[in-house]
Amino acid sequence: MAGYNGVTSADLPVKRQREDELENENGVSASSVSVEMEHKKEPDCISSVIPGWFSEISPMWPGEAHSLKVEKMLFQGKSEYQNVMVFQSSTYGKVLVLDGVIQLTERDECAYQEMITHLPLCSIPDPKKVLVIGGGDGGVLREVSRHSSVKQIDICEIDQMVVDVSKQFFPAVAVGYEDPRVTLHIGDGVAFLKAVPEGTYDAVIVDSSDPIGPAQELFEKPFFMLVAKALRPGGVVCTQAESIWLHMDIIEEIVANCHQIFKGSVNYAWTTVPTYPRQTPFLFNPSHIFSWHMLLLSYNYACANGQSQFSGVIGFMLCSTEGPPVDFKHPVNRIDADKSHSKAKGPLKFYNSEIHSAAFCLPSFAKKVIDSKLSEATFKSI
Amino acid sequence: MAGYNGVTSADLPVKRQREDELENENGVSASSVSVEMEHKKEPDCISSVIPGWFSEISPMWPGEAHSLKVEKMLFQGKSEYQNVMVFQSSTYGKVLVLDGVIQLTERDECAYQEMITHLPLCSIPDPKKVLVIGGGDGGVLREVSRHSSVKQIDICEIDQMVVDVSKQFFPAVAVGYEDPRVTLHIGDGVAFLKAVPEGTYDAVIVDSSDPIGPAQELFEKPFFMLVAKALRPGGVVCTQAESIWLHMDIIEEIVANCHQIFKGSVNYAWTTVPTYPRQTPFLFNPSHIFSWHMLLLSYNYACANGQSQFSGVIGFMLCSTEGPPVDFKHPVNRIDADKSHSKAKGPLKFYNSEIHSAAFCLPSFAKKVIDSKLSEATFKSI
Repeated sequence: MAGYNGVTSADLPVKRQREDELENENGVSASSVSVEMEHKKEPDCISSVIPGWFSEISPMWPGEAHSLKVEKMLFQGKSEYQNVMVFQSSTYGKVLVLDGVIQLTERDECAYQEMITHLPLCSIPDPKKVLVIGGGDGGVLREVSRHSSVKQIDICEIDQMVVDVSKQFFPAVAVGYEDPRVTLHIGDGVAFLKAVPEGTYDAVIVDSSDPIGPAQELFEKPFFMLVAKALRPGGVVCTQAESIWLHMDIIEEIVANCHQIFKGSVNYAWTTVPTYPRQTPFLFNPSHIFSWHMLLLSYNYACANGQSQFSGVIGFMLCSTEGPPVDFKHPVNRIDADKSHSKAKGPLKFYNSEIHSAAFCLPSFAKKVIDSKLSEATFKSI
Repeated sequence: MAGYNGVTSADLPVKRQREDELENENGVSASSVSVEMEHKKEPDCISSVIPGWFSEISPMWPGEAHSLKVEKMLFQGKSEYQNVMVFQSSTYGKVLVLDGVIQLTERDECAYQEMITHLPLCSIPDPKKVLVIGGGDGGVLREVSRHSSVKQIDICEIDQMVVDVSKQFFPAVAVGYEDPRVTLHIGDGVAFLKAVPEGTYDAVIVDSSDPIGPAQELFEKPFFMLVAKALRPGGVVCTQAESIWLHMDIIEEIVANCHQIFKGSVNYAWTTVPTYPRQTPFLFNPSHIFSWHMLLLSYNYACANGQSQFSGVIGFMLCSTEGPPVDFKHPVNRIDADKSHSKAKGPLKFYNSEIHSAAFCLPSFAKKVIDSKLSEATFKSI
């Protein structure tokens, strides 16, 4: 749930695009800023469209706005890669925002972190080596570390500020870093994957930003090929895969791509997260949103054009490489019965074996599209 | 999904409360108003907080706002019971709003209507007599009428305007009224239930407003007792039962109440509906919101106090009376395979047998509370 895709190599457009555009823009300070403000003393940089509220909007998905009331601004900064913001909301606890997009709220982060982690790790017996790409907030690490079979947890997150901010403001999330099995690599996820010896990991979890906009290629074949190469035979990947209510066209394409790369099984699962999906909500390139003034400009533009949307659900692609077959729908690990590794992290709040299987049951409109894509892809690959 | 609870008898406070308060308020016109406006020519009655947007907010659930862009206002009126409004949104199609609360959108109504109907009707063999309380828009009727075993469909809706508006603006929803098995009773749901001979129905579907505020008693024992009396032995009821993300305290109470009344089985299921839950979002009594000016006052109040919330999910209580046992989790009718009665209504978009069973799988935080309440209630009833 770190929100940064972790990929900025020359193979992918993220960093390149941002650098190009930065070169064309003058007079914009890129220095880090941290602010602490008193309750009720809202800074003028908060949206004046709804004074005192944070509004997440999207130029790509028109017609809906989702606003959380800002009780207190806790942190605003700019890293080398993105704007980082933390505020206290009135009902969702503390909220982490990267480039204007909600990454996690204390209230509902459990659903995302637990599902993106335990759906893959409970589907294979005794996972030992796990790689997390993105996920700098540490929430996925917290969940991975509940698995006693795991011996090695690598995480590749590009933005040190996300790690630091999470440790400062979200200790219950960043607690994942305290596990001695964790090794943090600050860097580019694609470069990291390229350097990984073939067949290293039992599971890869891609806690990325959205598969539209700059991170689009993270959901395309070249990236999936790198992931497949890094996995052992019968290894599994779980990657964030958007909302069935909003992006069946994108999901359709991801399913087709995955089915061509992963020769084991390919499945789509979903869960409820009230404050999702996170989006790339800006008129501007995200790296150019340096202040709430610019956020407001984006917001006004979106309002004027009827833009932005949410759905309350988020999906995951779950795939396995050729090898020992993986039946994702029927978990083989019952993490909910394993209490040995959960003391420091508290009990599971969301995941259990029943909700694991239920996550693969799709509404008819989504099932029809996904099943059809899987059949097509199978046909093509014969 | 009619939004009106259909209960205004002396036993319940809805109508009484509204009448009392109306008596204390002077100078408020209660006459019906209908307006048609051109695209882009927004009336000044639309919220000026986000100009041109409809914002659903709640004084009861603070901290979040959910806004849909109004492309065109299609209808505004006031019935004897509530304000009725229809607008064209930019992405969710036409939207029906009662007393400022979203009741249905063309885009996601399928999820609610199909689940609230087929969860009960697919759980018993050959349902013949079905009662719908509320549901004036006709969407539940449309779904009930897919069941070829059904011989009689009674609906008790208090507000004729909801029926008329649905027929005018939502023909794909109101199509349910075209089924010759349907008899519409305009009136009070509780009075209707009191007059029903014992054991009349195989299934009762309560398409009500929220179990907080005026409709609270619809989720309490006296109402459930009337429903139980109207059902045959082994008959089933399905009633809207809020969101696990927002109201576990309310759900807990409903579960306990139902378990005391329904001696068959008592279950909680849930589904995703992006624009839900609908709420009672007003500072004022809903019957006093006569215009967008007042809606704006409410909205401003809510903004100032950090109020309103959404979750993207809605739940259902599914109970059966003593008699032939009902296993709600394993449907006995496969409506998704029955195409004989769906031609005029189009195919099912959301419901299938898999999603039926999955709807009963709860996240751990909700499962814990509900299971505990069921155990307690069982203990007490021994």
